Amino acid sequence: MAQPDTVPHLSTALSGPLRDLERRLLDATADIERWFRLKWQQHTPPFYTSCDLRNSGFKLAPVDTNLFPGGFNNLSEACLPLAVQAAQAAIERVRADAQNLLLIAESHTRNKWYLENVLVLATILRQTGVQVRIGTISPEIGAPTELETASGRHIIVEPLSRAGGRIRAGDFEPCLILLNNDLSSGIPDILRDLEQPLRPALHAGWAVRRKSRHFAAYDEIAADFARVLQIDPWLVNPYHAQCGEIDFRTRAGEECLASNVATLLVKIRQKYAEYGIKETPYVAVKADAGTYGMGVMMVKDAAEMRDLNRKQRIKMAVVKEGLEVTQVILQEGVHSFERVDDAVAEPVVYAIDRQVVGGFYRVHTQRGPDENLNAPGMHFVPLAFERPCTLPDPQAQCDAPPNRFYAYGVVARLAALAASLEIERTAPGRAA
Amino acid sequence: MAQPDTVPHLSTALSGPLRDLERRLLDATADIERWFRLKWQQHTPPFYTSCDLRNSGFKLAPVDTNLFPGGFNNLSEACLPLAVQAAQAAIERVRADAQNLLLIAESHTRNKWYLENVLVLATILRQTGVQVRIGTISPEIGAPTELETASGRHIIVEPLSRAGGRIRAGDFEPCLILLNNDLSSGIPDILRDLEQPLRPALHAGWAVRRKSRHFAAYDEIAADFARVLQIDPWLVNPYHAQCGEIDFRTRAGEECLASNVATLLVKIRQKYAEYGIKETPYVAVKADAGTYGMGVMMVKDAAEMRDLNRKQRIKMAVVKEGLEVTQVILQEGVHSFERVDDAVAEPVVYAIDRQVVGGFYRVHTQRGPDENLNAPGMHFVPLAFERPCTLPDPQAQCDAPPNRFYAYGVVARLAALAASLEIERTAPGRAA
Repeated sequence: MAQPDTVPHLSTALSGPLRDLERRLLDATADIERWFRLKWQQHTPPFYTSCDLRNSGFKLAPVDTNLFPGGFNNLSEACLPLAVQAAQAAIERVRADAQNLLLIAESHTRNKWYLENVLVLATILRQTGVQVRIGTISPEIGAPTELETASGRHIIVEPLSRAGGRIRAGDFEPCLILLNNDLSSGIPDILRDLEQPLRPALHAGWAVRRKSRHFAAYDEIAADFARVLQIDPWLVNPYHAQCGEIDFRTRAGEECLASNVATLLVKIRQKYAEYGIKETPYVAVKADAGTYGMGVMMVKDAAEMRDLNRKQRIKMAVVKEGLEVTQVILQEGVHSFERVDDAVAEPVVYAIDRQVVGGFYRVHTQRGPDENLNAPGMHFVPLAFERPCTLPDPQAQCDAPPNRFYAYGVVARLAALAASLEIERTAPGRAA
Repeated sequence: MAQPDTVPHLSTALSGPLRDLERRLLDATADIERWFRLKWQQHTPPFYTSCDLRNSGFKLAPVDTNLFPGGFNNLSEACLPLAVQAAQAAIERVRADAQNLLLIAESHTRNKWYLENVLVLATILRQTGVQVRIGTISPEIGAPTELETASGRHIIVEPLSRAGGRIRAGDFEPCLILLNNDLSSGIPDILRDLEQPLRPALHAGWAVRRKSRHFAAYDEIAADFARVLQIDPWLVNPYHAQCGEIDFRTRAGEECLASNVATLLVKIRQKYAEYGIKETPYVAVKADAGTYGMGVMMVKDAAEMRDLNRKQRIKMAVVKEGLEVTQVILQEGVHSFERVDDAVAEPVVYAIDRQVVGGFYRVHTQRGPDENLNAPGMHFVPLAFERPCTLPDPQAQCDAPPNRFYAYGVVARLAALAASLEIERTAPGRAA
């Protein structure tokens, strides 16, 4: 895979205890796996997800679930066979006789690392035995265009054309379309009402999707899971809250935000007291729609919401591709207590279909444990997990890498299951 | 996994060209995978298989398909996650809500390498999230017994008890039973007509199974596959033939054997002439039921069948656990042109459910390319494939390891598909 030389030879970013929770997960492996098996019979897994986790020692929780994951180039080579096997299942779930798959990439064609991700993802998909071509909805690309990836390899990106209910790229007519474009800038007409199956569904894109709906579904999943394990669901689930419409430029809704932050901080403080946790609670304020770590603030005091300066307000007002922020989600901050070479690390876990296929640590040397590591322009060192998250080792200590990775895989699958509920419930034709 | 230190640091035993066939397989990856996807919708994959392949440079073919594979300890550690993922699918195919799985092992409890296989297999199964206990039908084991494996680890083997239509091991009542015992000595009453699902089915054991039925099913599969690829099916399929009842001790049926060997040698010679192959054709004479490489002879001249000495006749007359040989299969011999350190090597490829999960080379320093490498008491060096057989690399030469392994995986899956047909057709209640 890409950039093997830049990856430090550390296989985990272990530090915190998290022992009670991990021990509970490891002891309940059989119950957990059976629970997932039955859940996946009731719900269709997302084609793929990546999940940002936070491990605070006392708590392990998802903070973001991406339904159009980039970063496949950051997975270790050992993860590839698993990814291919899982992608086979994902493709077969849509069309068992699939031959031609069109992968629609993001339009930012100047990000060579993103192009590297597209190359690796296309390779994984090809290895399942389908023909893969890469399409774009970028108006700047009017003809098949060769682009160089970060590793110096090349991909060809092609414009799309539509005839009736079907799209194609040149003479390539796909029987299955996979979006790796999160539709932040809206749903383009060329993708609406297609006869060809398209995954993830259009309403899973950020034009429609809301983090608050995801975490509402996650509340249910976490509660159900916690009942089976007989644990406090808070250990795997951050508190969250919402306001109505916000306008950061005119400061409309600011007071509502501040009071909700205050309420959330009180709830977190109570939990910290219950568990004897000494850390300072904080709340992440995030755009309810959108990604790329833009439009995110970390707040330790409700008063901070009233004192936003012009620069902060502009930063919060717009996320990727100029999407205006009018709704936010307030999320309990989960401290990251994992470290790699004294830098703060955050695990990112990848799943395809029902399977966890690998992950890596996002590492940031200039940031603290309560800061957002997925910041625009940040420099992170992708630290590939040496193994996929699938194999607990019952003989080893519970903070041994395979076991910690198993715990990560469990929580990432809870998030994928929540995404499955979320997508079902927001499908057009269903009451929201 | 076991014995990592004894495995030479070679990742393949490449030598022969096999280029035309491999190139054809690689170019047709998409068609091949799609063909398999559709086939596996029509047929239920065996729970697991291992397949002995022979690669003669001009030909790549299965020579034996084991439905109760041992040797899981010979797979490389890199194969484990894939094996677990595939085992999840295999278990779910039988019972999605499976919690307790009983693994019934072979009775030869003094073979520490076999016990190592049981340990690794049980570990793979446990990691899917089911409780696993190991049972035995050996009359010598009357209480739970701890046995030491080759790596010095331990497994507990338990006797079975039956109440009504259900079996258990102590207080452990399985909802799924997996046989790793090939029933060479017959179907024990305790396993008949169980309410609990049992895989592989009883009629897949050597008490009922016949190699000739397997290769008859393989003829169909190979013909169908060859049509899709537009190749000569002979390139992946050894000729075979049968006689009626044989009694090696009384020499009854010997003449029939000799004339069938002669006919087969003529057919092989014609093919060799067609392809300009200079090797000496030979025929493997094998017991039609049974395993462990016993009851096998390699014959280059039909006259050899008439001149069997007493020792040879006794060797052919009995296979594992005293099972009497009364039927044989004659199979075109496929030269093994692969070498590891100048020793003859034979790939063994493992599949669980529909997935190829890895393999190794059986290497024998004292044997020639036209000899049987799976001989009793032989010393082989298991040479684990570094990678599973799932990922062709379209950029690399076709004899690059990933590509050769892909070809192996394809042929092993053809054999698994043939086993699927064979098991369906021999199911009780169906006309044979």
